[in-house]
Amino acid sequence: MIRFNSDYLEGAHPRILEKLADTNMAQTPGYGEDMFCERARDTIRRLCGAPDADVHFLVGGTQANATVLAAALLPYQGAISADTGHIAVHETGAIEAGGHKVIALKNTNGKLDAGQISECCRAHFSDESHEHMVMPAAVYISNPTEVGTLYSRGELEALRAVCDQWNLTLYLDGARLGYGLASPENTLDLPLIARLCDVFTIGGTKQGLLFGEAVVIRKDSLKKNFRYFIKQHGGMLAKGRLLGVQFEEMLKDGLYMELSRHAIEQAMRLRDAIRALDIPTLVDSPTNQQFPILPNVVLPLLAEKYSYATIERVDARHTAVRFCTSWATRPADVDRLIEDLGKLLG
Amino acid sequence: MIRFNSDYLEGAHPRILEKLADTNMAQTPGYGEDMFCERARDTIRRLCGAPDADVHFLVGGTQANATVLAAALLPYQGAISADTGHIAVHETGAIEAGGHKVIALKNTNGKLDAGQISECCRAHFSDESHEHMVMPAAVYISNPTEVGTLYSRGELEALRAVCDQWNLTLYLDGARLGYGLASPENTLDLPLIARLCDVFTIGGTKQGLLFGEAVVIRKDSLKKNFRYFIKQHGGMLAKGRLLGVQFEEMLKDGLYMELSRHAIEQAMRLRDAIRALDIPTLVDSPTNQQFPILPNVVLPLLAEKYSYATIERVDARHTAVRFCTSWATRPADVDRLIEDLGKLLG
Amino acid sequence: MIRFNSDYLEGAHPRILEKLADTNMAQTPGYGEDMFCERARDTIRRLCGAPDADVHFLVGGTQANATVLAAALLPYQGAISADTGHIAVHETGAIEAGGHKVIALKNTNGKLDAGQISECCRAHFSDESHEHMVMPAAVYISNPTEVGTLYSRGELEALRAVCDQWNLTLYLDGARLGYGLASPENTLDLPLIARLCDVFTIGGTKQGLLFGEAVVIRKDSLKKNFRYFIKQHGGMLAKGRLLGVQFEEMLKDGLYMELSRHAIEQAMRLRDAIRALDIPTLVDSPTNQQFPILPNVVLPLLAEKYSYATIERVDARHTAVRFCTSWATRPADVDRLIEDLGKLLG
Amino acid sequence: MIRFNSDYLEGAHPRILEKLADTNMAQTPGYGEDMFCERARDTIRRLCGAPDADVHFLVGGTQANATVLAAALLPYQGAISADTGHIAVHETGAIEAGGHKVIALKNTNGKLDAGQISECCRAHFSDESHEHMVMPAAVYISNPTEVGTLYSRGELEALRAVCDQWNLTLYLDGARLGYGLASPENTLDLPLIARLCDVFTIGGTKQGLLFGEAVVIRKDSLKKNFRYFIKQHGGMLAKGRLLGVQFEEMLKDGLYMELSRHAIEQAMRLRDAIRALDIPTLVDSPTNQQFPILPNVVLPLLAEKYSYATIERVDARHTAVRFCTSWATRPADVDRLIEDLGKLLG
Repeated sequence: MIRFNSDYLEGAHPRILEKLADTNMAQTPGYGEDMFCERARDTIRRLCGAPDADVHFLVGGTQANATVLAAALLPYQGAISADTGHIAVHETGAIEAGGHKVIALKNTNGKLDAGQISECCRAHFSDESHEHMVMPAAVYISNPTEVGTLYSRGELEALRAVCDQWNLTLYLDGARLGYGLASPENTLDLPLIARLCDVFTIGGTKQGLLFGEAVVIRKDSLKKNFRYFIKQHGGMLAKGRLLGVQFEEMLKDGLYMELSRHAIEQAMRLRDAIRALDIPTLVDSPTNQQFPILPNVVLPLLAEKYSYATIERVDARHTAVRFCTSWATRPADVDRLIEDLGKLLG
Repeated sequence: MIRFNSDYLEGAHPRILEKLADTNMAQTPGYGEDMFCERARDTIRRLCGAPDADVHFLVGGTQANATVLAAALLPYQGAISADTGHIAVHETGAIEAGGHKVIALKNTNGKLDAGQISECCRAHFSDESHEHMVMPAAVYISNPTEVGTLYSRGELEALRAVCDQWNLTLYLDGARLGYGLASPENTLDLPLIARLCDVFTIGGTKQGLLFGEAVVIRKDSLKKNFRYFIKQHGGMLAKGRLLGVQFEEMLKDGLYMELSRHAIEQAMRLRDAIRALDIPTLVDSPTNQQFPILPNVVLPLLAEKYSYATIERVDARHTAVRFCTSWATRPADVDRLIEDLGKLLG
Repeated sequence: MIRFNSDYLEGAHPRILEKLADTNMAQTPGYGEDMFCERARDTIRRLCGAPDADVHFLVGGTQANATVLAAALLPYQGAISADTGHIAVHETGAIEAGGHKVIALKNTNGKLDAGQISECCRAHFSDESHEHMVMPAAVYISNPTEVGTLYSRGELEALRAVCDQWNLTLYLDGARLGYGLASPENTLDLPLIARLCDVFTIGGTKQGLLFGEAVVIRKDSLKKNFRYFIKQHGGMLAKGRLLGVQFEEMLKDGLYMELSRHAIEQAMRLRDAIRALDIPTLVDSPTNQQFPILPNVVLPLLAEKYSYATIERVDARHTAVRFCTSWATRPADVDRLIEDLGKLLG
Repeated sequence: MIRFNSDYLEGAHPRILEKLADTNMAQTPGYGEDMFCERARDTIRRLCGAPDADVHFLVGGTQANATVLAAALLPYQGAISADTGHIAVHETGAIEAGGHKVIALKNTNGKLDAGQISECCRAHFSDESHEHMVMPAAVYISNPTEVGTLYSRGELEALRAVCDQWNLTLYLDGARLGYGLASPENTLDLPLIARLCDVFTIGGTKQGLLFGEAVVIRKDSLKKNFRYFIKQHGGMLAKGRLLGVQFEEMLKDGLYMELSRHAIEQAMRLRDAIRALDIPTLVDSPTNQQFPILPNVVLPLLAEKYSYATIERVDARHTAVRFCTSWATRPADVDRLIEDLGKLLG
């Protein structure tokens, strides 16, 4: 069985494991107050061109989202998200469990646009009984989105402008950020993201670490006492150094982008093959997730050799599925998949 | 200024005030454990043909909704609601503040249908990673709805069936229940509602009481320790007798339906006039809220004499507004409004 | 049966009911935005010598406490309270339901002292892992306390000073405030309270209104968007005018203090009698709640004619009970109770 | 610097790291649904003699406590804990953030006894207004406790009995469970714990894993949909296999107890030395945490070579500190500490 169903199928890149082994018996303070974490923070600040940023390391994405939004929102405030956003769909209501409404707006290819957000805020604040409604106060976006698409520089600048206009915190969930930055269609970079977003994450779990999401905070009001939020949300890893060691190794000399590029190369090969076979897709994704719409009849045949994620029934005879590549994808496995798709659908 | 902007503009029907005065100096236990509340509970059980129902009296609607859903839902569960539902729009996120997602489905004339709910549940429970999503566990409907429409007997029976199928608690918010039951298009009655719903409210605030919502619980698992939920939600009125006195007086001999019929008669006169003038409406409402779509040019002229609620911009030149009648509406005021609408738009 | 078990046994003072009747058919905006509420707010600002205070009217005490503390605390912060405080004991965890720890410190006669609070804060902020613990950020006191005692001017000034030192919000729950101000041992007044506290309530429910607690906010950061908190907590009364009418009538010409003095006179007569009979008390209360410790053998005899609250078993043969007087207490009933206590225990 | 300040100073036992490396490139399903987790679950069920137990793997202790109690408590219920309990003191109010009061009872050497719990429940349920108070519904204990002490078999049986009597869920936090089981004073074993507790954890983080707490659920009502709770609390590790691999390796052939015995041997050597020097202790601990009370004058001298945790000021001239041993403690380091204590205090 060759697995393409997600981008967290394996452990970590071997260099990560080696570094964990090398540093294993060092004695350090707990809870992220060790020198490994400090160096990893410095590395991230340098890569982002943001010397004043606060950086915290959390274990997982749902934890990071719940913690960041707890810090960003007052009790009567909510976060605007695309209706396909991870916080709106796939976190078992973690944001609501923290007391906040996710204000879900209709996505376009997994994305929000500035106009929607502006209209949402205008409608709220111009309503004579606005205090009977949840106040929008943050915008949650993911890049790449849950369906693999990317925000352009212009789109992100427009989101920043609308957030400034309505006093919203702009939060970018970068669980797969490297796969976005390595895309041929990418127009962003870390310093730009750090300049335009109030807070964002640099994902590790899906990008070659055992686990880990780095939260980068630019907005001063979010920085204060953020560690209290982390602890309350169960995110204060006792051996916090494990996160520092991994992020330092991954980021210090470009391994993060190297692995990201690998995943994107494999994904683009798959995209090209899907196009060549005239297979329609749910969305045109320039990143590591590909969403072909396949005839139901071929699914059991594919499933004999490959795992994939079932996304949605498109019509009575077709289903959209997801294939993911990652830092660990073997080119030969992609070759084989392309070959079999050709046999089944060519 | 003649006010039509809501159905809670005045105090209470005079008989309610008189009864409060008559009973004022009686000494009673607090927190709803007095004989007035007990008699009001018995009256409601009798009217509902539900001798085993538990009845609690709360002060307001948001409080009632938050309290009922807190009792109905486990932490990882959410309540399905029309996207126009009061809990989805107009309670400042009170349900989310209690930790629960409101699963908002697209309304049709303010209503949900059984098919939508079934599809929502099917999609959830058939998803291989359903534990990553909020589990639907209750259905919130209002009758009349927020836009004045009514569920038919058949529609309510279908909702009951789908709730049985997917193990959902069916909760009917009856903030304006009397105005629904008094409508010429109504096909429900209290015993039917009590038979089909797991829990529902009988509204007082908008129906001639100073304040008060009666919560009627049929489902046994919801009955247990419900008073703890009330207290925790700040809804345990110290002088609970005030609710008992009012509900008993309103319900003991038909005053509730008499006042409801009065409001509906006035609303139907207004509806007929709107129709006669070929004024379009946002929704065709058979109850005490009417939603004409008026040319913007007439609004300032109307506003000189009448208050109304602004609902939404329909196009560049038209706005949907709301006129409410109530138990207290004077027929002469409706006459005047009809006359002025005729002058402005005839 | 003559009831002394609480101070909310009857409805409202007759003048309150009359005013509600006089204003009953006036049409007003809802949610506290009417002229009655505005006038009542002005009256309170004047009585408090606080022209810049924000004033909101809520229905009940638990609701007021939960709403005020939701506005005063960030998610990782808690409220210091005496372990006898209402929020610590008698609100079914409403503060915790809002996400906040009640940091309960040992009471002395129902009170906190500044030294305890200072030590609690010092211990927190000097701990090297303070982010693992709830940060104290507010102080909740009640005056009179739950056991009838009073803070002196000096004690309140000391609390203010410690709150300034540690950046704590000082919140005084005045559910029985009038009964405190009317006590022979009182050293406070409304302007002093308004000067020293960041936020406090003036109780109506136990002081002659049907219901109602006025929340007076001095601290600017608490004022912002407070109505969102009210609505989210289910405390936005549709017919908000009912609170304005009642508070205006009660406060405009001294009725509040007149009724408070009446209750205290009756309570002091009872206290004198208890002392004269050498009956020990749980606490020496100068307000409307009296806590004699009675031999168990007399309790059933007393209970034939009087209701009282059972507070705690003191030893195998004695029980502390509570007798309350109120604005409605008939002097003859106190005479009778004193006489019977004398017969049973003289 | 030789560190004794905690038991999570190093990474993991080398065998754990090796196993992670060996399994690193295996492709597995995420979220704990892999074969490593399945085998680790089986191993735990076998060691506990509990074939019907549900086992889940979480990353950290605060996360585990918040998740378990969220599943165990209804909104109006609270968990009884010693006032020294981790949930009462050191989790930044994570339980309250989930809406629940921690009902803190006075500890004796870090422990609760059955009599206290019984009295707490009796007081609650016999109170005529019990619905105004948080209902006790769970008992949280830790073993070893936060101060290193142990529950005896008799004590745990008594707790079970009182939990049965009052319908309470008994939850044992075993963050350092191995260090308890390896103590010379231990009278428990895993099958006994599994028989007496409704739910408990087997700690990995402090016992030689990189991280990980195994939650073992015996009570059927807690088992249902527990994975929803995990995901909502941000505890669903994407690469859940990492927990399975570690726990399997640690538990399959006795490594867990071997490492635990090592830590206890070192701790007992230190305890003996402290006793021999007549150094008083805060509490007499038979496990891996030792709490000598040292003269303030020696602290800076000690601190030149050793890290330790400062626990509390005992008097003007003495401070209680904590030295921890662990699976990783080098005997020579303990030798040195003992020698230096002797020089300073002999």
